[in-house]
Amino acid sequence: MSVLPRSVEQVIEEFSRLPGVGPKSASRMAYHYLRSPNGDATKLANALKDMDESVKNCKSCFNVTDKEECDLCSSPLRKKDKLCIVEEPLDVVAFENSAVYDGLYFVLGGVISPAEGVGEDELRFKELEGRVKELLKDKDIVEIIVATNPSLEGEATASYIIDLFKNLLKEGKIKITRLAMGLPTGADLEYADRLTLKKALEGRRDI
Amino acid sequence: MSVLPRSVEQVIEEFSRLPGVGPKSASRMAYHYLRSPNGDATKLANALKDMDESVKNCKSCFNVTDKEECDLCSSPLRKKDKLCIVEEPLDVVAFENSAVYDGLYFVLGGVISPAEGVGEDELRFKELEGRVKELLKDKDIVEIIVATNPSLEGEATASYIIDLFKNLLKEGKIKITRLAMGLPTGADLEYADRLTLKKALEGRRDI
Repeated sequence: MSVLPRSVEQVIEEFSRLPGVGPKSASRMAYHYLRSPNGDATKLANALKDMDESVKNCKSCFNVTDKEECDLCSSPLRKKDKLCIVEEPLDVVAFENSAVYDGLYFVLGGVISPAEGVGEDELRFKELEGRVKELLKDKDIVEIIVATNPSLEGEATASYIIDLFKNLLKEGKIKITRLAMGLPTGADLEYADRLTLKKALEGRRDI
Repeated sequence: MSVLPRSVEQVIEEFSRLPGVGPKSASRMAYHYLRSPNGDATKLANALKDMDESVKNCKSCFNVTDKEECDLCSSPLRKKDKLCIVEEPLDVVAFENSAVYDGLYFVLGGVISPAEGVGEDELRFKELEGRVKELLKDKDIVEIIVATNPSLEGEATASYIIDLFKNLLKEGKIKITRLAMGLPTGADLEYADRLTLKKALEGRRDI
């Protein structure tokens, strides 16, 4: 005999799948909704459904958006000769909240990580090449800022990107820079504070 | 200009309301669903809606259930002359998982806590009196096991319950016991291990 109704167990099970949430926290979360006034769980439910249905990837930068092209890519205020390559959408949020960058972004979707079974094909390198070529139609030279995390995988991915663009680099059509190591090695980019991000961006160096 | 689509921000906002979840964890949780295969967010959404619609309080013990009367209260196997008063539904889960109790439960809905603005009227004392009278129709004597947490508020609530039943107690119709202090003071009942719970139940004493 199960003590909890099936629907509550289902919610606990779904919450347990979240990163960093164990069965105990998941129970607490489910019970939070059982205790709170009717409709709170439905509010989260509606928000989730809404997100699942409306959110897609921007056709240019692959950040999450509810439009065909995101607000950042379609903004006339953003410099079209700078492309900042980040791992995840939250990295874009970190940059934007710091207000230290006025160019475009490209969301790679992760880093090359043999340990986690993520190879080159899982990431958006083809789309990245396409995007750079597109930007070069309007600009003589485009700067690619490699802003993957300063971790082992992030560095490996940065090397892969440099290799990817070595011909364009030779032709002098692009410039590749890497965020300055103001960021402590092993840290996670999205947790960096405003000043650290600013310094890392200002101190970026040619590779 | 907002970096994130409105629907994603909505999900982050809703997750932030959860106990122990800050804005950063809430973002991580929302992004987990953006990254995972389509439909995972909808799965949680459906589970939540289902819970919100189907779960109510058992008419007898006020535990959460999807029936009129929960499986525990309607089971012929449970002893009808023992009523264990707990604060929250998760406390019932703790007892049931330990399989050390074969009586009935009553979920009070919290404890008296002037600091948090929870007075007697917020808790189910009237319903508790009704439940005890109902049980006394079939039984000559009913044992009430006070299983509120061994905290200041839990003890105060226990005293209130004893006061509530002082007449029935004088008439010899009920027996009131309190979980033995095998539980360390200040701890939270639902985190107790099987043995501690077993000892506390076995060592319960007359008040």
